[in-house]
Amino acid sequence: MKTLDLSTLRHGTDLVKRGFAKMQKGGVIMDVTNAQQAKIAEDSGAVAVMALERVPADIRAHGGVARMADPQIINQIIDTVSIPVMAKCRIGHFVEAQALEVLGVDMIDESEVLTPADPFYHVNKKQFTVPFVCGCRNLGEAIRRIYEGAAMIRTKGEAGTGNIIEAIRHQHMVQGMIHELKHMNDPALQALAEAYAQSYAEAFKTLTGHTVVATSRVFGDDEYSAVIKEILAVIQQTKQMQRLPVVNFAAGGIATPADAAIMMQLGSDGVFVGSGIFKSDNPLKRAKAIVEAVANYDNPEVIARVSKDIGAAMPGLEIGTIPKDQLLQDRGW
Amino acid sequence: MKTLDLSTLRHGTDLVKRGFAKMQKGGVIMDVTNAQQAKIAEDSGAVAVMALERVPADIRAHGGVARMADPQIINQIIDTVSIPVMAKCRIGHFVEAQALEVLGVDMIDESEVLTPADPFYHVNKKQFTVPFVCGCRNLGEAIRRIYEGAAMIRTKGEAGTGNIIEAIRHQHMVQGMIHELKHMNDPALQALAEAYAQSYAEAFKTLTGHTVVATSRVFGDDEYSAVIKEILAVIQQTKQMQRLPVVNFAAGGIATPADAAIMMQLGSDGVFVGSGIFKSDNPLKRAKAIVEAVANYDNPEVIARVSKDIGAAMPGLEIGTIPKDQLLQDRGW
Repeated sequence: MKTLDLSTLRHGTDLVKRGFAKMQKGGVIMDVTNAQQAKIAEDSGAVAVMALERVPADIRAHGGVARMADPQIINQIIDTVSIPVMAKCRIGHFVEAQALEVLGVDMIDESEVLTPADPFYHVNKKQFTVPFVCGCRNLGEAIRRIYEGAAMIRTKGEAGTGNIIEAIRHQHMVQGMIHELKHMNDPALQALAEAYAQSYAEAFKTLTGHTVVATSRVFGDDEYSAVIKEILAVIQQTKQMQRLPVVNFAAGGIATPADAAIMMQLGSDGVFVGSGIFKSDNPLKRAKAIVEAVANYDNPEVIARVSKDIGAAMPGLEIGTIPKDQLLQDRGW
Repeated sequence: MKTLDLSTLRHGTDLVKRGFAKMQKGGVIMDVTNAQQAKIAEDSGAVAVMALERVPADIRAHGGVARMADPQIINQIIDTVSIPVMAKCRIGHFVEAQALEVLGVDMIDESEVLTPADPFYHVNKKQFTVPFVCGCRNLGEAIRRIYEGAAMIRTKGEAGTGNIIEAIRHQHMVQGMIHELKHMNDPALQALAEAYAQSYAEAFKTLTGHTVVATSRVFGDDEYSAVIKEILAVIQQTKQMQRLPVVNFAAGGIATPADAAIMMQLGSDGVFVGSGIFKSDNPLKRAKAIVEAVANYDNPEVIARVSKDIGAAMPGLEIGTIPKDQLLQDRGW
């Protein structure tokens, strides 16, 4: 008989990858930069940790190129905690993703928080057995990432700001459009699929100088019409389920228990907290409070109680004070 | 009998020049500014070193005119290492190239990293017996440099940034267009050759005020139609081989073993690393790791292992923070 180890339960086909992602549902995934922080996250009840070089607030403050974390740190985190360990790779940097896969991480975040590596293509996530999570601002980005093989979607929000407005914006944009699908007939859905496929066509046009027609090649020798057909299938499934066909977490700007709870009430399946915990006064207390808030998101008594006396939240940033070309959410397409 | 020395094996006809360039295939060529750095590069397994006055990150930081390195430094580097020594000259500065040739360098990089010397013409590399490498952003630039006699091409990337996105952009642009050639018939290829020759016509027009017709002179007494014919021949060879007819290395922004490996997986024949090594925490360790990553570019186990504990990479720059008129990649045409 074949021996089952944990990784065979997490890695594999679309179904297996999406299944692992679904197991995180209702939970909080926390950004950590070392084993000590990972231990605090686990002790506070996080369902998983996300390993990265620097939390978004520090990336934003110090600038420079943000890359995959040092594999040695990732190993230390894996050795320290018993919960799943995720790690970030740069958009399109499929070799960082390959390295993370062999390091044994449980999920890869192809993240706009790191400096993008490829101006044309996201990672072709279908070629991996490890599951991926990707960010989105709207339904088009979500559908393209799922078409590329993402097993989980999260709002982009605006990472490192401690400001919830962008996560709420992106959640509304995705859900508003999913609701709208109900009222779209087949020709309208076909037109939508073509519009959503357009960013692949734009990449092809930039690469070659040629305007794309329906039979042009995108992604090697794939036919563009086949791309549209697959995208249409994801849209139709979304229309029918009236939700994304993969779990959809909130991320980017969550700083308080109330922030986490509002994302859940708006329909998120769970939350990622980045800078919000380890840039606050009392990380352990705040982490526990956010976990409890997510588990009891529709119980205001609990939200009120866990919000008490947990020290100051991260100071945060008004979105309007960030120069337009420094918005992390605009990375990826 | 004629005595063969090393330089006669490297210098000479197109075939010999391209053959020497091909011998670097699968290897890493490292920027060095003195003999001590050249020794570290050789010890780490570099196939060649590139002598220059300042690494790109310092050129970028300190500004001023960047020129050919001091011949005394180049001599010291040649005397110190047994691997080939390359050196950079300014775009169009054929006298720097002549000086480098008699100094005995093994290859000349006509490089946009130095301050360009000629606003109309690149060096006529056919007139030299020493092989040249030149940068490109797209297939048109690559074809023009090969037509002018370059024995090796490299992506321009954006030197001195430690940011891989521009090298990936240029690699995709070249390869996307090579792939597209498959589907172009003879009239389309002829039109492409005319478009690629256009920058010579533009130079002629600026110089004389005359619009170029098919029989106008460019490059002394050459006929413009002959230029187009030669360019068409390079395009046809590229179409047939489905790759450039000379080796194509990656350069400009490589800072990590994963960066080097992704360029190889994207089809580069080898890599140049500039600021990425001597602007990092531990140059010897990082240099060795990058050499091993290039040799094992499709083995994620190796990439993950050699990426561990090699100290901090160069901090790097987001491309968006660089003023448009300070982009090195826009030099040359």
